[in-house]
Amino acid sequence: MAMTRKEFLKLTGKGAAAASLGFFYFLDEPAGFAADVLESSPVKKIHAYIDEHLGEHVAKIQEFLRQPSVSSWNMGVRECAEMLVGYFKQLGCKEANVVPTEGHPGVWAWYDAGAKKTISRYFMYDTQPFNEEEWSSPPLAANVVPLEPFPKVIIARGAINSKGPLRAFLNALEAIIAVEGRLPVNIMFTCEGEEEQGSPHFHQVLHPYIDRLKTCQAHLNPGPAQNRDGQVGMALGNKGIVYVELEASGKRWGRGPQRMPIHSSRKAIMDSPVWRLIEALHSMYDPRTNRILIGGYYDAIVPPSEEEEMLVATLIAKFKDRVFASERENARVWQQNWSDEEAIRRLVFDTTLNIDGIWGGYTGPGVATILPHKAACKIDSRLVPNQAIKEQEALIRGHLDRHGFSDIEMRSLGGGDEWSRTSVKASAVQAVLSVYKKYGIEPAIWPRSAGSSPEAQYTRPPLNLPAVSGGLGHGGRAHAIDEYFVIEGNEKVAGLAECEKSMVDILYAYAHWPE
Amino acid sequence: MAMTRKEFLKLTGKGAAAASLGFFYFLDEPAGFAADVLESSPVKKIHAYIDEHLGEHVAKIQEFLRQPSVSSWNMGVRECAEMLVGYFKQLGCKEANVVPTEGHPGVWAWYDAGAKKTISRYFMYDTQPFNEEEWSSPPLAANVVPLEPFPKVIIARGAINSKGPLRAFLNALEAIIAVEGRLPVNIMFTCEGEEEQGSPHFHQVLHPYIDRLKTCQAHLNPGPAQNRDGQVGMALGNKGIVYVELEASGKRWGRGPQRMPIHSSRKAIMDSPVWRLIEALHSMYDPRTNRILIGGYYDAIVPPSEEEEMLVATLIAKFKDRVFASERENARVWQQNWSDEEAIRRLVFDTTLNIDGIWGGYTGPGVATILPHKAACKIDSRLVPNQAIKEQEALIRGHLDRHGFSDIEMRSLGGGDEWSRTSVKASAVQAVLSVYKKYGIEPAIWPRSAGSSPEAQYTRPPLNLPAVSGGLGHGGRAHAIDEYFVIEGNEKVAGLAECEKSMVDILYAYAHWPE
Repeated sequence: MAMTRKEFLKLTGKGAAAASLGFFYFLDEPAGFAADVLESSPVKKIHAYIDEHLGEHVAKIQEFLRQPSVSSWNMGVRECAEMLVGYFKQLGCKEANVVPTEGHPGVWAWYDAGAKKTISRYFMYDTQPFNEEEWSSPPLAANVVPLEPFPKVIIARGAINSKGPLRAFLNALEAIIAVEGRLPVNIMFTCEGEEEQGSPHFHQVLHPYIDRLKTCQAHLNPGPAQNRDGQVGMALGNKGIVYVELEASGKRWGRGPQRMPIHSSRKAIMDSPVWRLIEALHSMYDPRTNRILIGGYYDAIVPPSEEEEMLVATLIAKFKDRVFASERENARVWQQNWSDEEAIRRLVFDTTLNIDGIWGGYTGPGVATILPHKAACKIDSRLVPNQAIKEQEALIRGHLDRHGFSDIEMRSLGGGDEWSRTSVKASAVQAVLSVYKKYGIEPAIWPRSAGSSPEAQYTRPPLNLPAVSGGLGHGGRAHAIDEYFVIEGNEKVAGLAECEKSMVDILYAYAHWPE
Repeated sequence: MAMTRKEFLKLTGKGAAAASLGFFYFLDEPAGFAADVLESSPVKKIHAYIDEHLGEHVAKIQEFLRQPSVSSWNMGVRECAEMLVGYFKQLGCKEANVVPTEGHPGVWAWYDAGAKKTISRYFMYDTQPFNEEEWSSPPLAANVVPLEPFPKVIIARGAINSKGPLRAFLNALEAIIAVEGRLPVNIMFTCEGEEEQGSPHFHQVLHPYIDRLKTCQAHLNPGPAQNRDGQVGMALGNKGIVYVELEASGKRWGRGPQRMPIHSSRKAIMDSPVWRLIEALHSMYDPRTNRILIGGYYDAIVPPSEEEEMLVATLIAKFKDRVFASERENARVWQQNWSDEEAIRRLVFDTTLNIDGIWGGYTGPGVATILPHKAACKIDSRLVPNQAIKEQEALIRGHLDRHGFSDIEMRSLGGGDEWSRTSVKASAVQAVLSVYKKYGIEPAIWPRSAGSSPEAQYTRPPLNLPAVSGGLGHGGRAHAIDEYFVIEGNEKVAGLAECEKSMVDILYAYAHWPE
């Protein structure tokens, strides 16, 4: 990265010039690395092994998908955890065991390759529920079927989120061991069975292994990252999230109906918790200016780093048209009439205050004349560096109290996902970029996604690991009907073999990346 | 009413003095009226007839209640209308027929007694639905059972609202005719089978008979008006009601999510219809001052009349403690910390803006992170003289438009109930008061109820009839489980015989009231 920020920004300010830069600007690959590592004989042999054993690999993915693990139904979750322990033992892990929590169990495993580097790897093995009747192929059958425009996919609950890719990664590891005898890195696996519940007990899975995890150098999660068109977006972090429920009730307020809705004619003499909730909400956010009015809410935010500015400038210059392509039919204009360029910046850098749901009183068809005794809403706020969940929640509570809304109850529902950030210079990121380069795929690199994830469990204290995911392959309809994972791809999207090969590449690239 | 308003208000301003006035202040009974009319031989004979035929009268009420007429289920409604036509013919009505509407049919009947006075009588013959399993006695069985603290009640859907009282009134009429050969007044009956639907087609029932109804002198509806403790409240009118649904949607707005909820991380760049609805609502009403902020919303309101002031002053002086007794456990303080005296005034004289329900986005348990594409609420506003539904609705629409909320859709859901007002001096009211006096019951007289009713169909142009209801008897749990009508009362509450006798009294009192 020889160019100064000033020089770079000058370039990216002129769209065309910046567009010619590409993501390779962010890749600092050692000379000859591709030939020495990514095209090396061991890697080639492993790739060949994967091609030869693809049928078995598909069968193993099917086996895993046919074991239900619906956390919200408590369906097959423990059995699936034990199946996963079995896989780790088969792989040759030195340690592999179920980790009890107050909820569904997690799994810990340690593969000791005697290698220089140790990576941390996260798995979720639970899935969303399903309504079998709605599926074109049963969600627990894991059938291989054609699905336009792909010649072969597996349709199953968990196919892409995330049991399919999880088992594909184990397939890749087995291929490496079959050919080379051992993995190029040591791996510590921490796995949970409650991701679809918001990871309420994941800290209990990590806790006994925190000191061991501190010996890792990176949190590296190879997996299928292509969209339907074969494009790749790569986020080097995520926003944190506050999620609270606010409830105004006559009972806590001591005003208005106390125990139940009453006849709406009483509004002539009685206060309304619904109007109160609206007043409280209105005091928190001004939609005309998109300004959060909670005192101090922006105070913890630090300006974007130079690297973040460079990444966003490149994103805008190279990928502006692609970024919002899929959102165009559901969004005609951005708030404040921002340009696409501005919207990309805001998506990366802004905190938010969103109402996910609001309810109170009679909400059915037709007329009911009542004065409700309570009203509530769900609010989420995405957090950027250095906002922290506890502090931002305290600011919301403090705002309500200062404005006379002490009676409004605030219930914290969040899973505790803080913001996460990894530098593009981290060797794990560089290794993944070098693999994309090998396949001629130019990823759109985001400093962070606009959403949230538990990644901060690894990237923030006490572990402080750089974190990255990525790889070839594609799947879709997570949480929806006919969830799928592509087995045989097309000219745009990689199939399972290429997906597993890219996983192998990433492990070798990272193992050999000069520190 | 010899006292001037000033003198009266001076008195009522001093609680104790006013309390000694009582409701008789409002009754201007001719000398000897009780003996000449209410204790007259015909009335005594009719009362005796009712006692002698009480068993048959109960059976007739049961017969009518056993005929289902659930308008929202379209269950037995037409059959019930035809049964009612049969009753009118049996009574000797000159005209009695089903009146087709675009919904369930109404019924028209005319009893011509050749009397000087003609009254208009309203019936509703439909009922709410029911869940039979929840009832202690089947809702269509109309069993006579004990129900604490009453020795005998009929339990049935419609027992009190309103088929039981309706059939009791016909029983009273039959008793009069059996003893005296004819009724003391002519009666025009207009009946609907869609009251529980908000009377959407009642104007179609009235329309063909408007010129006939203009020949009536009063809209007089005798019926059981005692509460559980035997007390009687009497409202000489009601408020009107505007009922609208407001909906903010991305689609109409052209901003925010257009077709479906999207991932809440998008709040960083997209507008929210939920925040928009909140902003719009907040612009309409200030809960801190209880002020409706819709421009011109109070303009049509006229000051209370002298009579209304006198009625309210008496109500406060005599019945302050009783008025809110049943509401005390559901209301600890009135809005603006009003005294009970002030609350009574507001309940009678104030317009309102109430949110009956609000909804948008995810309202289930736990976490869902979405940016909703729409949000909506139901609003009702009670109207006092001279506010009118169309005008107040136009003011709401105008307010939204002027404040930049033209995209917020407003759907009118109201049934068209305007405010209604009858003077306490009307002879129909005086007649009912004289009957209460006969039985030593002091009614709490309200210039109007805080709620709404279709009464204005009769009291406002083109009919302009004075309207009043009242009588002895009691029933309860309208719209709820184990709805009942008292057959055998106790020391506080009248039973069916006294209920029917008071109906007879009211008809005779009105027939003989000097005009």
